[in-house]
Order: sequence, then structure tokens, then C-alpha cells
Amino acid sequence: MTAGLRLRPIGIVRSRFREPSDLPPPAFAPPRFFERSTGEIEVFPEFAAGLDGLEGFSHILVIFHFHRAGGPKLEVVPPGESKPRGVFATRSPHRPNPLGLSVLRLLGREGGRLRVSGVDLIDGTPVLDIKPYTSRDRKSHIRTGWLQKQRRPAR
Amino acid sequence: MTAGLRLRPIGIVRSRFREPSDLPPPAFAPPRFFERSTGEIEVFPEFAAGLDGLEGFSHILVIFHFHRAGGPKLEVVPPGESKPRGVFATRSPHRPNPLGLSVLRLLGREGGRLRVSGVDLIDGTPVLDIKPYTSRDRKSHIRTGWLQKQRRPAR
Repeated sequence: MTAGLRLRPIGIVRSRFREPSDLPPPAFAPPRFFERSTGEIEVFPEFAAGLDGLEGFSHILVIFHFHRAGGPKLEVVPPGESKPRGVFATRSPHRPNPLGLSVLRLLGREGGRLRVSGVDLIDGTPVLDIKPYTSRDRKSHIRTGWLQKQRRPAR
Repeated sequence: MTAGLRLRPIGIVRSRFREPSDLPPPAFAPPRFFERSTGEIEVFPEFAAGLDGLEGFSHILVIFHFHRAGGPKLEVVPPGESKPRGVFATRSPHRPNPLGLSVLRLLGREGGRLRVSGVDLIDGTPVLDIKPYTSRDRKSHIRTGWLQKQRRPAR
């Protein structure tokens, strides 16, 4: 067992969302709100060569630091819900390890700059890793537990 | 910008794969090899309450530490390939931040133990985060760049 793991940002998000409160919860966002939301990931120059070959992929997985999250909680009440849920059954930022994950559409790359859509991240978010989205990440016939009961499906 | 982020495991993977060399590269694995591969995630008792509500989801996203990865590289030659690719265009463990991501099928939960399939992880892998897989993680009409040229599609 490892005692711990220290990570450092490889890049930063550029987004029109300045504050966590600028981001509507997915279940309550207008239709196609996030699909239309564009932004950039600036990968730091020392890591830009690591992006070579990513251009051919339509989508990327971005692991980021929830740097504005405050402290962790084991139970959270999701937006619009009344019942608390275990934090690992939600996408809440209040996690023991404050790691976030977004699947973004990759629109283009110029050197270390990735133009993306699907942005649900705030400006200045530290990016920890970028991975290509592959067919193994796409699951069909999924069940989404308590989310299925929400007024609008989370898309 | 943050100076760094320190993470600690919330659980550990139990798998029949003992060594990294026990895992075939996805593109060269027999059909349905990983779908049939079952195992467990043991979430440590102090975090088990964070799993409440996860039972209703068919799939989970698991972020883990590539604890056997060795050092990072910016370019890697994927298995069966001759051309180097940027590490962020691959799922290689040799990443600046050694974070891995797998989408697993959730078969059941007993307390802090999750029974899963789709296991492509080695025994003892430290788990950093678990998230529910939602419809926003499922993308259609994807392009998968250099992977599409491989002999067998990566599924």
C-alpha cells in the first residue's frame, strides 16, 4: 500500500465560468447547455509533446483538481434532492481525494492548446491528466440509480 | 495555481492479475476477455459510508494509482505499434501524474466491498476515487485516432 501520492498540474482550464456558482447542476441546465459550452485546456509547454497523436480522437477524458471544493464529506445532498447520498454515488466536488472527471469533445489542437466543448469546469481549474476516450469507455444499457428519478436526465 | 495535491488511497483492488505482465493490452486480448474478468474493490471502512446509493448504478468510474508504473515518459510506443505517441494520446501508465481510469460494471455491494467486472487492474492497486457512470460519460459517434488502425478494435 502506498502512503500517498503527490500530483502536480500539467495544465489549466480556460473557461467562461468564473465561479463554481456559474455552473448549473447538469440535471437543471438548459438542454444542450454543456454541449455548447466551449473553452480551452492550456497544457504547460514542458508537457505539450505528450499530446502528439491526440488530434485523431473526438473526445478526451480530463482528470482535474476540484481546487475550489472546500473540505471532503462522506455524504452530500445533490442539487434538487432532499436525501443525502454517499459522495462516491455522486459527482460532487466534496470528495476524500478532490479529483474531477469530465468527458470533453476535442475540437482542435494548436501546440499545447486544446479547444474543447462540453466544458463544465471553472476557469483556472488545474488539469492533472488527459486521456483519449475509447470504445471501452462507452457503455450501453446503463442504469443510473437515483439520478434516473431526477426531473431532467443528466446529460 | 496550486503547488501540488496530495492524495491517499480510499481502497484497494482485488484481482486475479498479480503482475502488470498478466494483463494483455486491450487491443490484443481475446474477445470479451475483460468483460469476463471479475474482481473486487475493497473500500476502507472509514470511507464505506461514501458508497451509499452507488448500488443503483450499473457502471462505475474508478480512478486509481498506477503504482507499478515506474517513471513518466512524454512519448510511448503502444503495444503492437512501431510509432511513438504522446503519452496523453494513450492509456499508458507512464504518465506525469500516474493516474489510471477504468469503467467497471458494478455487480454488487456488501458494505465496503464492491464486486465488479471489466477488471483490467492488478491486485493491490490503490483506488483514489469512485464515481457513478452517467449518460454524460457515454459518447456516440466517437473517433479513436491511431487506435482505429490497430488489428483489433480496443473494446
